Amino acid sequence: MNEKETILAVIHNRRSVRNFTGEPVSKDDLMTILKAGMAAPSAVNYQPWEFVTVTNRETLNQLADGLPYAKMLYKAGAAIVVCAVPDKAFDKSTEYAIIDAALASQNILLATESLGLGAVWTAAFIDESRINYVRTVLNIPKNIIPLNVIPIGHPTGEDKPKDKFNDKNIHWEKY
Amino acid sequence: MNEKETILAVIHNRRSVRNFTGEPVSKDDLMTILKAGMAAPSAVNYQPWEFVTVTNRETLNQLADGLPYAKMLYKAGAAIVVCAVPDKAFDKSTEYAIIDAALASQNILLATESLGLGAVWTAAFIDESRINYVRTVLNIPKNIIPLNVIPIGHPTGEDKPKDKFNDKNIHWEKY
Repeated sequence: MNEKETILAVIHNRRSVRNFTGEPVSKDDLMTILKAGMAAPSAVNYQPWEFVTVTNRETLNQLADGLPYAKMLYKAGAAIVVCAVPDKAFDKSTEYAIIDAALASQNILLATESLGLGAVWTAAFIDESRINYVRTVLNIPKNIIPLNVIPIGHPTGEDKPKDKFNDKNIHWEKY
Repeated sequence: MNEKETILAVIHNRRSVRNFTGEPVSKDDLMTILKAGMAAPSAVNYQPWEFVTVTNRETLNQLADGLPYAKMLYKAGAAIVVCAVPDKAFDKSTEYAIIDAALASQNILLATESLGLGAVWTAAFIDESRINYVRTVLNIPKNIIPLNVIPIGHPTGEDKPKDKFNDKNIHWEKY
């Protein structure tokens, strides 16, 4: 495969991985993933994002205990919490901070897939109780919004990519 | 390069391209880019996105005329307007629709880069006047939010990637 084919393959092979083997994830791999996150674009290049990276087994379990849709954390090797920082965003806009942190998150999901690891976006935002739980467990200040909790780990292989192409979503020239 | 290296290279080489040669973009390339967009994840897999793809010279110019930060459309070969559709989103949430459309947009930017083309996110959302202008030019209904206008074209080569790695954005184990 040439460069063009491989990135498109990763984009299409990326799937939400919810089944992990329990093996740890190396710090080298996590750094590669975090660097990819920070390569995302942001409004006026303000980069209004921060990342809390968890590898500690007890903390991962504590997050799983309180997050109904993140039980896969019990078997994940790590988690990255992508945070939106409105104070650092263009116009101090919460909306831009959220969008920019979302773009960093998509790079994180793709980089994870490219390393042969798996990940899934579990939402903290916009649920106030989940946001507060993540803030409490990870000491995240009130002015910083944990957008998601992304469990990362070695996939068991059970999760498969979906074909989501739908021609009806495309309008040519006008809506 | 192997698969792992190539996607990371594309993620890091992707830059906001604002200088285009004026050459057209093929429909095949646009379809490849749109398919990559639809491979993004979305909340509960609801896929609350639609895409208006413009190649008509007059429409591209008309968009450029009314959008102060999208003057590069005069030299772009095409544009994709990624739309968020709250009615189709999980919980009919505008926030999820915006986030999901942002993830599709990031795939679009990466796929464009991988084809040797260039692109840049110019924001419609959250500016009401730009949102309304794009809606008017492209006949987009009121309940659908044009998140951005992404000019796509052949880069002149002037635009270079930035290294945005910042160790201070990373917190280990706790904030």
